[in-house]
Amino acid sequence: MPPEPLTPERILEATEDVLRRYGPAKATVVDVARALGVSHGSVYRHFGSKAALREAVTQRWLDLSHAELSAVAGAEGPAGPRLRAWLAALFAAKRRKAGDDPELFATYMVLVGENSATVDRHIETMIGQLAQIVESGIRSGEFAEPVSGAAATARALWDATNRFHDPAYAADWSLPGIDAAFDAVCDLLLRGLQG
Amino acid sequence: MPPEPLTPERILEATEDVLRRYGPAKATVVDVARALGVSHGSVYRHFGSKAALREAVTQRWLDLSHAELSAVAGAEGPAGPRLRAWLAALFAAKRRKAGDDPELFATYMVLVGENSATVDRHIETMIGQLAQIVESGIRSGEFAEPVSGAAATARALWDATNRFHDPAYAADWSLPGIDAAFDAVCDLLLRGLQG
Repeated sequence: MPPEPLTPERILEATEDVLRRYGPAKATVVDVARALGVSHGSVYRHFGSKAALREAVTQRWLDLSHAELSAVAGAEGPAGPRLRAWLAALFAAKRRKAGDDPELFATYMVLVGENSATVDRHIETMIGQLAQIVESGIRSGEFAEPVSGAAATARALWDATNRFHDPAYAADWSLPGIDAAFDAVCDLLLRGLQG
Repeated sequence: MPPEPLTPERILEATEDVLRRYGPAKATVVDVARALGVSHGSVYRHFGSKAALREAVTQRWLDLSHAELSAVAGAEGPAGPRLRAWLAALFAAKRRKAGDDPELFATYMVLVGENSATVDRHIETMIGQLAQIVESGIRSGEFAEPVSGAAATARALWDATNRFHDPAYAADWSLPGIDAAFDAVCDLLLRGLQG
């Protein structure tokens, strides 16, 4: 049986396994190569450095929920419920990541701290999706013209909901009442958009 | 000249000095007593334990801006501008604390992590002041009846503005554009209250 070809995706999966097993402080490219049964040179042909590999695995983790959210942002129908669905899907995805595998989540918190440019790009993508919903609501007349403009308002929506997506608040996500708190923030923001 | 009487306030001031000098890991009650020229027994007569002393100094630090904010919350005049002034005063107070003495701020971050019940009480007081403004705005007809009730809406205002008061975001407070971001969140929330 011929060996599976060495793809970036296989390397990233192996990297995640190695990070989970050895922790972010100890995991090396040699560990990743060993887990794949290849030389570390083969890994370096896809990712030029340990830093590049760690950045790519962070990016992949941050992007995990992008596709789903992007579909919600671009869906048909009224903008208000779509915005609420988008924020709820983001919150649910973050909670799943934090709750299902807390050790891996802690590992990624270390990586996120190392790769702030990757995180900034991720946040820009998220805010871009919010802007898409805000603009469609303004076009349809469902939302009033925002006081601060659509782009600043999308950023404001991101900022105003960070208790429900910023990993700094992960400990809050299992509190009783957190869903009611999320609903209260959404209620206020949606009214603010309707103007 | 008779010695100054040993008041809780003098002990707390000395404790802050000692914390600043030795850091939160090393500061002891003996250091505090030495700084005041008294026995550690005299300190213990006011604060029964090292933990109690650390809690009291944390409480004092958190309460620093209470009086000012409380005056804003209870002022005369329309509720909308009062809410914005209250949020701006809170943001300004937090920025001052973080910016004027970053080392002391870092020390208090450690203490805040140790004294979560003290922090919870502080947050309750803050949300109580927000509720006071929200309720007065509803009474005067300036704010609509909130979808989630006044208490939940006050909590939502707190949550929605945490980029501008939670020390976890202290690094953001000197970013260019942070004031515009603050204004955009306030604009959205105020429209949401006006309903």
